[in-house]
Amino acid sequence: MPNVSVERIEKDLLALSRFGFNEQDRGVYRQGFSDADMEARRWLMETFTSMDMKTHMDGAGNVFGRMGPDNKPCVMIGSHLDSVPAGGIFDGALGVVAGLECIRTIRENDIHLDYPIEIVATSEEEGRFGGMLGAQAISGKVTLDWLERAQDSSGELLKDAMARHGFDYHEVMHARRSPDELRAFLELHVEQGPVLESKRTSIGIVEGISGVFKWMVRLIGKADHAGTAPMDMRSDAFLGLADFTHEIQRIIDEEGTEKSRITIGFVELKPGFPHTVPGEVDFTIVGRDLDPGVMKALAQACRRVLSSIARKHGLMFEYEQMSWLEPSYCNSKVVDIIKQRAEGRGYSHMLMPSGAGHDAQFLAEITDTGMIFVPSVNGVSHAPDEWTHWDDVERGANLLLDSIVVLATD
Amino acid sequence: MPNVSVERIEKDLLALSRFGFNEQDRGVYRQGFSDADMEARRWLMETFTSMDMKTHMDGAGNVFGRMGPDNKPCVMIGSHLDSVPAGGIFDGALGVVAGLECIRTIRENDIHLDYPIEIVATSEEEGRFGGMLGAQAISGKVTLDWLERAQDSSGELLKDAMARHGFDYHEVMHARRSPDELRAFLELHVEQGPVLESKRTSIGIVEGISGVFKWMVRLIGKADHAGTAPMDMRSDAFLGLADFTHEIQRIIDEEGTEKSRITIGFVELKPGFPHTVPGEVDFTIVGRDLDPGVMKALAQACRRVLSSIARKHGLMFEYEQMSWLEPSYCNSKVVDIIKQRAEGRGYSHMLMPSGAGHDAQFLAEITDTGMIFVPSVNGVSHAPDEWTHWDDVERGANLLLDSIVVLATD
Repeated sequence: MPNVSVERIEKDLLALSRFGFNEQDRGVYRQGFSDADMEARRWLMETFTSMDMKTHMDGAGNVFGRMGPDNKPCVMIGSHLDSVPAGGIFDGALGVVAGLECIRTIRENDIHLDYPIEIVATSEEEGRFGGMLGAQAISGKVTLDWLERAQDSSGELLKDAMARHGFDYHEVMHARRSPDELRAFLELHVEQGPVLESKRTSIGIVEGISGVFKWMVRLIGKADHAGTAPMDMRSDAFLGLADFTHEIQRIIDEEGTEKSRITIGFVELKPGFPHTVPGEVDFTIVGRDLDPGVMKALAQACRRVLSSIARKHGLMFEYEQMSWLEPSYCNSKVVDIIKQRAEGRGYSHMLMPSGAGHDAQFLAEITDTGMIFVPSVNGVSHAPDEWTHWDDVERGANLLLDSIVVLATD
Repeated sequence: MPNVSVERIEKDLLALSRFGFNEQDRGVYRQGFSDADMEARRWLMETFTSMDMKTHMDGAGNVFGRMGPDNKPCVMIGSHLDSVPAGGIFDGALGVVAGLECIRTIRENDIHLDYPIEIVATSEEEGRFGGMLGAQAISGKVTLDWLERAQDSSGELLKDAMARHGFDYHEVMHARRSPDELRAFLELHVEQGPVLESKRTSIGIVEGISGVFKWMVRLIGKADHAGTAPMDMRSDAFLGLADFTHEIQRIIDEEGTEKSRITIGFVELKPGFPHTVPGEVDFTIVGRDLDPGVMKALAQACRRVLSSIARKHGLMFEYEQMSWLEPSYCNSKVVDIIKQRAEGRGYSHMLMPSGAGHDAQFLAEITDTGMIFVPSVNGVSHAPDEWTHWDDVERGANLLLDSIVVLATD
């Protein structure tokens, strides 16, 4: 198989990075339905046109470019074009421009395909309005009610942000693609974590996207003056949280797997004054695993440990399950194809879960999906110093090319 | 010895509570240099006048009422008139109105005194502008520089708040009283803690006011995506804090006394997002003890334990000592007088530290001081449901009366 040109990928990535680039912090600000995001989408449509690909934008803002006949199901590849505020140049964009390079390489080398290829640049993946809007629209998972209520952190409604760019939000409901139109979906993405780099491995083949639950937990004791309340007469809610935090590794050791994650990322003490014993602490627990049974075991253990700690410290314990997303699996045949091609190319590779959510998890609802990860330097993402070395980018794009060719050939 | 009339104390307390009373939450809003605070001070001056006592307000807003000759040192009694927002009716005010009742009882029973009595209602004790302004002015501890810079949480300058009520802040520097003018200072106050009630004891005789240190501590690890960073590749700053919190009781057991307190009342995770491993945690440590050597040992142990935890978790550890206030001791002769009179009255009593700061700690700089605590129901203070039972109020006031008489007689 021929190789992609990583120089052309670099050129396209840098071209895309100019949409929303901030000179001060060197970060990309291309949030979903911002002016920069829409300019990037128009640039992509012009690029598709200049490459003689059929292009259109659907009612959710997804941009498509197609090569091949209209009457056959396609192999769809791609990722998102939007970024977080102060994001990097690889996240999302890499999966789109690698697709452009695959098309060019296929054409230059006259590689025969039996099925069309479609490149998709999905909309609002990063979560300005909740995230993965484009992928959810393609897989038919969006509701009108949600579209009417969704707003960003500044309070701007999604439907208003869409209207400013000429979208009628009702049209999102027409963006669904039928399973008949698709043979498979492939997404090349940066890992956004430290595993591949630490294992000196170039390719991560994603087995699935971890399920995730999010709890808001409240431990309630009694606020007291930190000087007048003796240590043994307090109901210090924070001591309860400290005890629980101490048990997290044990919970994973006993109930989890090496793919399990439990994180306390948000903590609020009330009243939160240095001279007051905290009478209440609100905090989040975010748990993840690739196995729904393990997720349930982790959640049950968290509840059991919190109950017992609350009893011990004389605290009240409340929690609300804010969300529970089941794991989503990549298709085992697609995984095998990627694995065989990685072996064929002699690339170091490993199977791994994706701890972060991706468009692929919604595409998995309507077609066979696969995901290819390339290493993130220092595991950094969602930051201006996000980086992936060009030789890793080249390997990832070559593997995407090889896998497309297999999937698009009878 | 005769008894005070607790009915008259109740009447005065309720009269005072009307200044700044809020019908909605039933709390007292009489912050230092508010209109309600100044009205309460004028009411007190009128009361002194109606009782044929000489009265004046000094340049710091302290109100004095004096009975007895001008040319002899006085026994000073009193407390503060200002309140926290949504405070109770006893905190501070009790020590002032109990003084009024002692004067009435002394006169009605023709008790002979060799020295004058002065009642003081100190200004801005509760901390709108930093706290204990009046007591610091009396003991000569205020600086002009501080007076010019002090501001409340809304940004209003102390000197502007004073000017609105006709004060020239330069006059605060003339409020100092010479040690020659004083024989002793006595303060009756509610405990604001749960100890007396839990020990079914009516009287707390304060040995001293605990010293207190306040640290702002920062543990720095690395922020990571809570899904993509495996548990064993994280530098989670919050795990370091949880470990430290776990060791607090051990630090007190090994280095402290039953009077020691260590409290974590403020915690801030950065970035503080549920789906991000906290790369940094900022928190306060407030430590207290009545012995400066114990305070040092507690502080050293905190530093040692934090250093070791930081090493273990691969975190950076920084701290800043925001303040270090040495303990302040009541005068042992005054403590003995209060103790003997409590025994004489047959009141249950105990020696105890004050974990909260009080005006008495500054008066101790210029004269012999003593403090009498009465129980707080459920240990509550700085809240509308602050309460002290009237029979305890009566015992406290009787003990104040007895102690004054001893101290004001040759």
